[in-house]
Amino acid sequence: MKRDVKAIVKEMTLEEKAGMCSGKDFWHLKSVERLGIPEVMVSDGPHGLRKQADEADHLGLNDSIKAVCFPTACATACSFDRDLLEEMGERLGEECQAENVSVILGPAVNIKRSPLCGRNFEYFSEDPYLASQMAAAQIKGVQSKHVGTSIKHFAANNQEHRRMSCSSEIDERTFREIYLGAFETAIKEAKPDTVMCSYNKINGEFASENYRLLTEILRDDWGFEGYVMSDWGAVNERVKGLKAGLDLEMPGSGGCTDKEIVEAVKNGDLDEAVLNTAVERILNIIFKFTDNRQEAVFNREEDHKLAAKIAAESMVLLKNEGILPIQPEGKKIAFIGKFAEQPRFQGGGSSHINSFKITGALEAAKEIAEVTYAQGYEVKEDKVDEKLLEEAVQTAKEADVAVIFAGLPDAFESEGYDRTHMRMPECQNLLISEIAKVQKHVVVVLHNGSPVEMPWADDVEGILEAYLCGEAVGQAEVGLLFGQANPCGKLAETVPYKLSDNPSYLHFPGDGKTVEYKEGVFVGYRYYDTKEMPVRYPFGYGLSYTTFEYSDMQVSAEEIKDTETLKVSLKIKNTGNMTGKEIVQLYVADKTGAVSRPVKELKNFVKVELQPQEEKTVEMELDKRSFAWYCTELADWYAATGEYEILAAASSRDIRLRKTVKVISSQNLPLSVSRNTTISELLENPGTAVMIKELAESLVAHMGGSQEAEEGNAAAEAITPEMSMKMMENAPLRSMRSFMGMKEAELDALIQKLQDAVV
Amino acid sequence: MKRDVKAIVKEMTLEEKAGMCSGKDFWHLKSVERLGIPEVMVSDGPHGLRKQADEADHLGLNDSIKAVCFPTACATACSFDRDLLEEMGERLGEECQAENVSVILGPAVNIKRSPLCGRNFEYFSEDPYLASQMAAAQIKGVQSKHVGTSIKHFAANNQEHRRMSCSSEIDERTFREIYLGAFETAIKEAKPDTVMCSYNKINGEFASENYRLLTEILRDDWGFEGYVMSDWGAVNERVKGLKAGLDLEMPGSGGCTDKEIVEAVKNGDLDEAVLNTAVERILNIIFKFTDNRQEAVFNREEDHKLAAKIAAESMVLLKNEGILPIQPEGKKIAFIGKFAEQPRFQGGGSSHINSFKITGALEAAKEIAEVTYAQGYEVKEDKVDEKLLEEAVQTAKEADVAVIFAGLPDAFESEGYDRTHMRMPECQNLLISEIAKVQKHVVVVLHNGSPVEMPWADDVEGILEAYLCGEAVGQAEVGLLFGQANPCGKLAETVPYKLSDNPSYLHFPGDGKTVEYKEGVFVGYRYYDTKEMPVRYPFGYGLSYTTFEYSDMQVSAEEIKDTETLKVSLKIKNTGNMTGKEIVQLYVADKTGAVSRPVKELKNFVKVELQPQEEKTVEMELDKRSFAWYCTELADWYAATGEYEILAAASSRDIRLRKTVKVISSQNLPLSVSRNTTISELLENPGTAVMIKELAESLVAHMGGSQEAEEGNAAAEAITPEMSMKMMENAPLRSMRSFMGMKEAELDALIQKLQDAVV
Repeated sequence: MKRDVKAIVKEMTLEEKAGMCSGKDFWHLKSVERLGIPEVMVSDGPHGLRKQADEADHLGLNDSIKAVCFPTACATACSFDRDLLEEMGERLGEECQAENVSVILGPAVNIKRSPLCGRNFEYFSEDPYLASQMAAAQIKGVQSKHVGTSIKHFAANNQEHRRMSCSSEIDERTFREIYLGAFETAIKEAKPDTVMCSYNKINGEFASENYRLLTEILRDDWGFEGYVMSDWGAVNERVKGLKAGLDLEMPGSGGCTDKEIVEAVKNGDLDEAVLNTAVERILNIIFKFTDNRQEAVFNREEDHKLAAKIAAESMVLLKNEGILPIQPEGKKIAFIGKFAEQPRFQGGGSSHINSFKITGALEAAKEIAEVTYAQGYEVKEDKVDEKLLEEAVQTAKEADVAVIFAGLPDAFESEGYDRTHMRMPECQNLLISEIAKVQKHVVVVLHNGSPVEMPWADDVEGILEAYLCGEAVGQAEVGLLFGQANPCGKLAETVPYKLSDNPSYLHFPGDGKTVEYKEGVFVGYRYYDTKEMPVRYPFGYGLSYTTFEYSDMQVSAEEIKDTETLKVSLKIKNTGNMTGKEIVQLYVADKTGAVSRPVKELKNFVKVELQPQEEKTVEMELDKRSFAWYCTELADWYAATGEYEILAAASSRDIRLRKTVKVISSQNLPLSVSRNTTISELLENPGTAVMIKELAESLVAHMGGSQEAEEGNAAAEAITPEMSMKMMENAPLRSMRSFMGMKEAELDALIQKLQDAVV
Repeated sequence: MKRDVKAIVKEMTLEEKAGMCSGKDFWHLKSVERLGIPEVMVSDGPHGLRKQADEADHLGLNDSIKAVCFPTACATACSFDRDLLEEMGERLGEECQAENVSVILGPAVNIKRSPLCGRNFEYFSEDPYLASQMAAAQIKGVQSKHVGTSIKHFAANNQEHRRMSCSSEIDERTFREIYLGAFETAIKEAKPDTVMCSYNKINGEFASENYRLLTEILRDDWGFEGYVMSDWGAVNERVKGLKAGLDLEMPGSGGCTDKEIVEAVKNGDLDEAVLNTAVERILNIIFKFTDNRQEAVFNREEDHKLAAKIAAESMVLLKNEGILPIQPEGKKIAFIGKFAEQPRFQGGGSSHINSFKITGALEAAKEIAEVTYAQGYEVKEDKVDEKLLEEAVQTAKEADVAVIFAGLPDAFESEGYDRTHMRMPECQNLLISEIAKVQKHVVVVLHNGSPVEMPWADDVEGILEAYLCGEAVGQAEVGLLFGQANPCGKLAETVPYKLSDNPSYLHFPGDGKTVEYKEGVFVGYRYYDTKEMPVRYPFGYGLSYTTFEYSDMQVSAEEIKDTETLKVSLKIKNTGNMTGKEIVQLYVADKTGAVSRPVKELKNFVKVELQPQEEKTVEMELDKRSFAWYCTELADWYAATGEYEILAAASSRDIRLRKTVKVISSQNLPLSVSRNTTISELLENPGTAVMIKELAESLVAHMGGSQEAEEGNAAAEAITPEMSMKMMENAPLRSMRSFMGMKEAELDALIQKLQDAVV
């Protein structure tokens, strides 16, 4: 059905138009019955439908309907599986159709800058490429069911502390490469119906009234055509926001800001055309939903099964010294820890699902093995309960294998505030240490939204990172622990040894007014790997019950233009005895030396399933963006001419194969010649290099020094040949005047001549 | 003799005045005979007199007169000995008097931001307090002999790469605390006659034409009354420089820029009063020298002895597993390495001394022990010479103890360019490793201007860091190796394990146009200690042949106002058998949490000599600046009210005693209340706290959540009590409108009421 939205807008009164630009309440948009504009609903959750059941309260946080809680983004990102995320998206889309929800609020792609960010569990990765790929897949899935998504929180909302007023201070290159990078591909490729702007300021300007962000970058550069809504309560000045490109304010303001819009149009402060455009964008998405309503049933049992499958494909096996999978026959197995019975599987805040049913590991294990159980610790308070501890140690001691279900309680991480440290509760750390003293065969299963310090890592034989893996978490855990499934997730973030290792440590969470992203592009493994730091577990790392061999890497060309695409292929063989999936990662290392860059960056990946002894050839592409960095001088992406290494890897620290290719740039960096242009800058530009070479040589002669300086000649020692050469290179053109007696007019003429020669 | 300089300036023609503002040539200022203004000379060197003998050439680098090369600043800083630096300064002053040099160019106090800076050997420390104390002592010493100094390079000249055009991008707090910090105390306390501005830009403005730097900070804030001269060739636009506070351009421009000044006065672009002031400042210092000429003799033999003494008090014993001091009786001792014969003891560039005589260790040892010798490696080229290597290994093998004299050749570090890595020559590293395989008892003596990686550190029994210790280096080395002197230097900088550990690693040396000081105040140990990183040797570390015990720390008050001074005393006892000197360091650790700060900062130190078993009480003072950080909101130094730990330490990683004191601030941070002021900011100000408390409580109630939330209640789980509380604290006042239904007018009234309550 093709509607003439412009015609509808023309029929609307000024007040009706202003009204369309804010919610009716917490979750609904307004209707205009006389024009056939229906009321539609939007609902939280990136990993499940949080549709509010009752009348919306002030904060929209009353009990929601029962829904299936899928694994959170911190978990699903570890699947590195585009198809899986798309499948989850499809299911969420169907649930929305069944519940008549027009837009589901998510996915959330903010970069994990610090492990302390309280909302990390809702975010995918420390890597923008991975985050954007996961988000794109999820968006495609949801929107294939004719339900909208709202990619969020746009942008640079990487902490909860002072999130409503703090300014994220980021340099342009870092913003483009890292923080916008997570949004860009997803928005360009998957075209989400809406974008949700964040609470914070960016370089001093609220995201909700940031023209550069919401119009210049989002729409002009990236071609976004949907509408932008505010995060709940993110609007500061409504009219300024509308002008900047913020179409919909959520929740409604009880009419206050609608009046401001009307007033602004009337007094000429706001061009009505701006308002019309915003309303058109909102109506387009409303009708896109209502005109494509589908029959759908909310099949919670089926969805629970899917949640279990996704969980199993997302968990990461971090350590396994022969203990896993557990062969249950004839073994006494102890499950220790409250999280075996009542797992933590999601985080607090707007994404919190009223879960349909919850399967803990203890329940799930019943079908497979007989296990003993001890609670071990209290979740509500971090206090050692001697009785629980003693009982747990005893239970573990009496078993052949102890599996400890540990992690972070709700109070430790949530939307709304950041963690202040990276430790698990002391009572849990103590529990693990005490058990490790009496039981050699210990597996720790972790439930947490963001990395924790693991002081006991060397004392246990196995560690399974379950993150917050949704309501079917127990089923997935048991499947992996007992070998019914083969672990195939890999870390979507680095696990550092300690908090102070993190690149943002010295600058997080800022002074309350601003937070400076001083680590620049060196976020996550970009930092740890470039700084050659030891880490507990690297980005992209994860074990399997089988092994894989990488071989025969091929590139489609040894040299490409930056306008061309490179194909990279290699063979992967399952060299073990169990069917498994391997995540093959492709990193690019810039060897041109043109700019300070991370030693490697993830630019593609593929997940491949292999039967025992099976071998497959996988192929991935790299294009200009795979080699490029954001060059502020060009205000564009730029891949300098030179060599790049292509690394095929099992993790960021496990490079299996490598090839060097040369990329030829089609761009030249601008060069504006002035008195302060250095000789070396002029030598770098092919146009001026020839002209300056002769000049440089005579300058070196003037600077003194000689290759044949006698030993013991103090003057010659003072100025070594190296020093002369470097002083020449570093000299600005104005030095010609003081060191070579060049006249001002001659200098000016030289500058002009050089400028003309620039290419 | 009191002169009326103003009257002289009045007599001068415009051309004469302009002429006074630039050099006659490379080393002389101009005279005006008719007015009795004499020609005076200035000469390089912070650690020795580099007075050019012949007619100045283009670059002023012809052979200079023979002079005594004292230890360079990288070495003398390790003495932590104010008296010693003053003594060296006195001797330099006498040499200047003997040679009729009016100003000696130095000391250089730039902070060692990166170990790669080619000129680090001329600089004191990574710590501004230590650098400023050493500089102040040296300035006092020189100027006590009525010779001027030129503290340099002002400011933020922390690399050689593109030093003439690159802009050092530094935030205000970091600039004040770290980079200006190294100058401030020295300039305020020791009042150098001149300051030398640096080549580089600072936040986009050349130091040589930086009004804020040369006038507002240097003169208005710090009260500097001497003249500012340019580093040689640092002038960009002469007239702009003069207006900014650059009095003297060096070297002369052959009259070009004098003409520009004349022209500018004539066409009204430059107020003649500005020129007059500059000339007055220059004349004041000229006459200060000429009116106080002293008889002095350049006694090179005496000065050589002093150089040896300073060297012995500066070297740092880094490792000693019982091997030192060497008892020469009956032992076969091998000296290995070219630097035993021809030591490297100074760096290349403007500070390079034409040394009076050079004493290497091989020569110095003759009087004490019989030693065998093998050259081991070539200095000129980093190439393994198999013959030299083999011979050295054999010589070491046949001895009872091998002392390897190693370090960096001239080509590896110099003024004019930066190092590209932190390694020693491969041929030397190999030599040490090969010798360590055949000889258990190895001592390495290092000659280098900046730290090197020591891959062999675990394989040798002793390491003595000699830095670049002046022409008498060999005498000092032999004295320490054989126990005629007791090592008493400590590191004035951290020795990291590897280059990538350094805080500036990701941002050094910048992109050629700018270098961003993104590590902020976290320079040197401020970074390593705060980041809890392992280091090879920490700041302030150094061994002795005796041991010291710290006890009985006392503070003069448990609580002080920030206007008061705190006295700290403690007892130090020599618990060994040899007379020795201990450097006691006082660090302050801010526990107030007011701002992100290093975990500790050096705020005082004392060096004390103790006979065996002798105990002394040492006392040090701390004042407001010892506790304060530079608060940009106040544009002032600020010590927040709260607790501070005073740490008495043998190094930054060896805290021996600690006391907590409370400081009461006399300042209040400004608070401007707006729609975006957060509740927590209002709770921090005593004036608004009472008023906002009630409001905050009702806001929490509105935000939902409850301490008694039932388990399993999804709504309660979504909003935990922690989350409610934090959301309240983070909420800006404008949230009152959307979340509590407050009207715009009410909000405005509330803001006004709160602003009135601010204290």
